[in-house]
Amino acid sequence: MDSMRIIEVKQSIFADNDEDANKLRSRLKEQKTFLLNMMSSPGSGKTTTLVRTINALSDRLRIGVMEADIDSDVDAWTIAEKTSAKTIQLHTGGMCHLDADMTRQGLKELGTEEIDLAVLENVGNLVCPAEFDTGASKNVMILSVPEGHDKPLKYPLIFTVCDALIINKIDVLPYFDFDMDLVREYAKRRNPKLKIFPICAKTGEGMEAWCDWLYQEVMEWNK
Amino acid sequence: MDSMRIIEVKQSIFADNDEDANKLRSRLKEQKTFLLNMMSSPGSGKTTTLVRTINALSDRLRIGVMEADIDSDVDAWTIAEKTSAKTIQLHTGGMCHLDADMTRQGLKELGTEEIDLAVLENVGNLVCPAEFDTGASKNVMILSVPEGHDKPLKYPLIFTVCDALIINKIDVLPYFDFDMDLVREYAKRRNPKLKIFPICAKTGEGMEAWCDWLYQEVMEWNK
Repeated sequence: MDSMRIIEVKQSIFADNDEDANKLRSRLKEQKTFLLNMMSSPGSGKTTTLVRTINALSDRLRIGVMEADIDSDVDAWTIAEKTSAKTIQLHTGGMCHLDADMTRQGLKELGTEEIDLAVLENVGNLVCPAEFDTGASKNVMILSVPEGHDKPLKYPLIFTVCDALIINKIDVLPYFDFDMDLVREYAKRRNPKLKIFPICAKTGEGMEAWCDWLYQEVMEWNK
Repeated sequence: MDSMRIIEVKQSIFADNDEDANKLRSRLKEQKTFLLNMMSSPGSGKTTTLVRTINALSDRLRIGVMEADIDSDVDAWTIAEKTSAKTIQLHTGGMCHLDADMTRQGLKELGTEEIDLAVLENVGNLVCPAEFDTGASKNVMILSVPEGHDKPLKYPLIFTVCDALIINKIDVLPYFDFDMDLVREYAKRRNPKLKIFPICAKTGEGMEAWCDWLYQEVMEWNK
């Protein structure tokens, strides 16, 4: 609980974000720190998924978390209480996404020397975060069953920029008109290489495949 | 079906949005057209709610719909197929929200002379649309049960700028940890005057109170 700090991060309006992102990615590669950028709509279960992911991997990886929010710090407290990961809260001051320089500011505060896997929980938004490369090693998005299988049609960019798609809340599939085959088809149409992991973060179902993939990616990056 | 057109709307970078919004609102008031701006996360049920709302009010009001999306037109086709409302699709060209001038461009294409109630279905996003006054007579947001009761803590601005909050998907309350009293408390803390309507757009439960409120607001505006 002591490790939970709140950092106000500011957007640099003159920056070339793609250049900043590439610089940050190179530095993280040298330092052997893998940065995972996690994106989704509000309420899709990012924080619950993250708690399970950290607890599954924390005996093998040193993990740090940056929780980005416009204003509140409820998610950072949840991570700090339910996991052993070092956690800081980033406040974006109203901004709807993080760019590479804001991410750099956050990583500086988190400290990356003792971190194998740094996770950025981006602002809940399917539009703006997809437009800004944060410098992450890999991008993952969470789509939850109640949101519907048409989301790859309506928010195409985020499906294009992500390496993995977690489909969360599969425990409520019987109560929603959600077609798993159709969402796979729509998502793969945006991004044929996308890895897809159906899970239930609440019960833990499907977490193993996702955590195995992430662990392999971290090992590959940090070797 | 003939009435479904796709309009590319462009943001005016030099505009004073608040001034544009106030001008548009005054003109709509003179023309006796009520503009409802509907906001929510992706997948909260805006389109399903709108179909039910239109079908409940279409014998008393002449209704027009502007469906704003980044890219697709699936929602506009749904409205055109399932209701008798005049419907157009607005494409924002990647933009994460509509501003007042983009709304004005849409209304011009929709035509407001024969419309008592114009509905703008904004881009699915809890952050950016809240920051831009569209010139609407009233703002409504939809929060769906699966998104969780903590959203007023995490996305405060949208709860502040809305006149009404629809809480959708109450049919799945038994399957989610969603505290209705707590969400009311959090939301009222942001906005004590907020009207709250729990509904299930799929079954129609609770729609009457919402439609009655909307009808009264339209009558008041257009008198």
